[in-house]
Amino acid sequence: MVKEKPQQESVSPLTGKQYVIPETIDDKTGIDNFIALHPGKKVVVVQGLGFVGSVMSLVVANALTEEYAVIGIDLPTPFSYWKIQSINEGAFPVIADDPKIGLFYKKAREKKNLYATCDAYAYSKADIVIVDINLDVKKQSNGSGHLEDYSVDLGPFKKAITSIGSCCKPDVLVLVETTVPPGTSQKIVKPVLEECLQKRGLPTDQLKVGHSYERVMPGPKYVDSIQNFYRVFSGTDEASANATEKFLRTVISTDEYPLTRLGNTQATEMAKVLENSYRAMNIAFMVEWSRFAEEAGVNIYEVVNAIRMRPTHKNLMLPGLGVGGYCLTKDPLLASWARMNLFGSEEPLQQSEMGVHINDQMPLFAFQYLQSQYEGSLKGKKVLLLGVSYLNDVGDTRFTPVQGIYEQLLAAGCDITLHDPHIVFWEEKELRLNTDLNELLQQSYDLVIITTGHKDYRNNPLLINKLLDRSASFIYDTIGILTNDEIKALKTKHIVKVIGRGDL
Amino acid sequence: MVKEKPQQESVSPLTGKQYVIPETIDDKTGIDNFIALHPGKKVVVVQGLGFVGSVMSLVVANALTEEYAVIGIDLPTPFSYWKIQSINEGAFPVIADDPKIGLFYKKAREKKNLYATCDAYAYSKADIVIVDINLDVKKQSNGSGHLEDYSVDLGPFKKAITSIGSCCKPDVLVLVETTVPPGTSQKIVKPVLEECLQKRGLPTDQLKVGHSYERVMPGPKYVDSIQNFYRVFSGTDEASANATEKFLRTVISTDEYPLTRLGNTQATEMAKVLENSYRAMNIAFMVEWSRFAEEAGVNIYEVVNAIRMRPTHKNLMLPGLGVGGYCLTKDPLLASWARMNLFGSEEPLQQSEMGVHINDQMPLFAFQYLQSQYEGSLKGKKVLLLGVSYLNDVGDTRFTPVQGIYEQLLAAGCDITLHDPHIVFWEEKELRLNTDLNELLQQSYDLVIITTGHKDYRNNPLLINKLLDRSASFIYDTIGILTNDEIKALKTKHIVKVIGRGDL
Repeated sequence: MVKEKPQQESVSPLTGKQYVIPETIDDKTGIDNFIALHPGKKVVVVQGLGFVGSVMSLVVANALTEEYAVIGIDLPTPFSYWKIQSINEGAFPVIADDPKIGLFYKKAREKKNLYATCDAYAYSKADIVIVDINLDVKKQSNGSGHLEDYSVDLGPFKKAITSIGSCCKPDVLVLVETTVPPGTSQKIVKPVLEECLQKRGLPTDQLKVGHSYERVMPGPKYVDSIQNFYRVFSGTDEASANATEKFLRTVISTDEYPLTRLGNTQATEMAKVLENSYRAMNIAFMVEWSRFAEEAGVNIYEVVNAIRMRPTHKNLMLPGLGVGGYCLTKDPLLASWARMNLFGSEEPLQQSEMGVHINDQMPLFAFQYLQSQYEGSLKGKKVLLLGVSYLNDVGDTRFTPVQGIYEQLLAAGCDITLHDPHIVFWEEKELRLNTDLNELLQQSYDLVIITTGHKDYRNNPLLINKLLDRSASFIYDTIGILTNDEIKALKTKHIVKVIGRGDL
Repeated sequence: MVKEKPQQESVSPLTGKQYVIPETIDDKTGIDNFIALHPGKKVVVVQGLGFVGSVMSLVVANALTEEYAVIGIDLPTPFSYWKIQSINEGAFPVIADDPKIGLFYKKAREKKNLYATCDAYAYSKADIVIVDINLDVKKQSNGSGHLEDYSVDLGPFKKAITSIGSCCKPDVLVLVETTVPPGTSQKIVKPVLEECLQKRGLPTDQLKVGHSYERVMPGPKYVDSIQNFYRVFSGTDEASANATEKFLRTVISTDEYPLTRLGNTQATEMAKVLENSYRAMNIAFMVEWSRFAEEAGVNIYEVVNAIRMRPTHKNLMLPGLGVGGYCLTKDPLLASWARMNLFGSEEPLQQSEMGVHINDQMPLFAFQYLQSQYEGSLKGKKVLLLGVSYLNDVGDTRFTPVQGIYEQLLAAGCDITLHDPHIVFWEEKELRLNTDLNELLQQSYDLVIITTGHKDYRNNPLLINKLLDRSASFIYDTIGILTNDEIKALKTKHIVKVIGRGDL
């Protein structure tokens, strides 16, 4: 007896609507009909409808100096299928504080120049394919945040490139925006595409491969972080670089934010991961120094502010609970991996790897500090975590360090309440959150931890007064957002501890 | 038979003049006579007449809003004694490109308000003592630049503080400018002085200890780096901080460069070493990435320039031969040592220590690269090193990384010619240099290494043409100062290699 494959579903976390994923994908008619609406227009296919690809497809559909027919494509998985249906049904699958997202989507709906599909047939119509899929690092940690080893599996990425190569025109421009290990465009994307074309009996000499990394920041400037921001680009050859430049000029405000062309694709690939490694390392640096500050009775914030007066030291970071997001937590490792695995070096990028190493342990450090304060027994303590997002004033939970401290407190037997003004549903933990801070502050907590620097928690007399109303508790500010006056007031009733402040 | 102690001499490297160091020091009359010239003026004693103290004494003698009687004091050693005599004889012991040094010295001579001595009796007259002595880190390396261990010996520093405490007035302000391990003012300077006062039967409650780190940069802005620059300061108590502030306001242009007061002396001590650790780490970061760039065929300079367009990444450094100078080579270690030894932490400052670690190996890396190019046999090669100073456009050889590559080339049997437009005599190696580049370029060399980024070597058609005139050689630019056009021209006859450029 053959076991029937169960029907797969994809549910929109925004509307709750359920979509049955078809067993065979055939959207030729849909794609052909869409193309037929836009005779003479170039077709741009955006591969991957995540944080970058979804908004990139909007920006291309609203290009500044050319009209494109844009197709967003993603896989028919429970995680992605609802996005495709949503886009075509009139509900954009990204919620953000940026009003431009709604505006751009409305315009694209009016112009009917944005379509979504999961049928690779779309690649056969593309003049340009923009690669916006993920390329992940697998970290092996010892369960408490300590990075023991890591690996990069290029398999899924190669598969995605192969799906392009199996259908694409021989003169397509494939523009990689994914953050990749340096060397990937030249050593992987180009050969994979060429091999596909050769198998199909097609010429390879008109193929164009470009690389231009995005710097997308979800939040109130989401669209601007694509349309109004500096871009660095390159191509695997002159024609590829030229084609990439020509395209970018139509979608980005290049008068105000000039493009920078680099000599080869390794250079632009390196620029992106170098940028993020620099930032990750600078955070790790400050982690170590803020611990030293606590030990030495120093207020690290006043030290950093004093040093930042020097222009050569403006980029000093401030301490916090940890590092989150999709980039800083993995890009230094991508780079170090590429150095050893794509270019045969025997040496890793030590400073960059150590940055990830130190940052990954930050939530553990905070947890261990609390444990020491409660003499090991956190069991049954009522805890309020203020903030789940890894970034201030944005609802982005990807690799948030709050997850680390949340899981450790949970394992220690705490009774945890979560709050984040920007997060209704915490996807990774499948938790629904109460966004009403006032309601949550009706109760008393043994421990209140400020885990994200949202402006809702900064200079908020209501928050301070509500905390003062309640019975004695421990207030742990991991971000340093409490002012000296607030600390003074809170100290009349509570124990107050701030990361990086040994002077309290 | 008692062996007679040989007479010690101190020779001025500037004039060649020899001074016999007296066996017993007694300069009471000289000091009293000097003080008598300045009735009613506060007496400031500057301890240590090195790179900082000598120029600091000039700046105090030319204070902006008060007239001081200034005494510079140093030890009667061969290294220092000539400086004391020189100051009193009318020849300032520092040569620099800064015309303000000559001007300030001339004014002080006219006002007769600067005196130098090696008699600790001077401390008994001081209202303010400024501590500008060295505090060194001893590094144990494996002989090839690899840092194996390090230690901090506070002995000489404590001895110097004791010499103050043994003579000073009980209400003196001791202002520490030396870069010290965080915690030193509070845990060492203050207790040592108090113990001395107690032994002398004097009260300790009027003693004032301040800390304010200098950011002195030898070179064309030497004086301005003291008088016209931001200052951070603190005191071991309120009265000490106030006294320090009052004094600094009289010597520094605080209207234009406001003072910053921090909460305690640990904070200011930490600020200085944090600043320098940050810089050392950023250099080490770029060292690793520039090697990766070479491996991956990337021009790291174009990558860095592209990234620097982002304000959050303006502080990215550029690669070079190595790190030199008195601060960046040791301050991260001072800090890490203090964390473990003065505050009992079990953890070092890993990122900061690794910065020193990586930087210390840079000259070795350059040497090993050359060795590989010559298949191990550098013996007998004629080598020209362009630059000995660690800093562009300045003649400062303290801990210059050029020493590392020089010694390794020498050990490999090379015939080395050194050039530096700013250095007539290389003190550490006791070598006299020919500063006439044209003359040196009459000859041919197997290997020309650009080791310092002096402007004399940048955009210098004469240098390029002279090199082109000569027979085939290897040109190794460790600083990245050759332009693309220069490289193209040189490549017609020579092998050209630039650190951080894998695209050549």
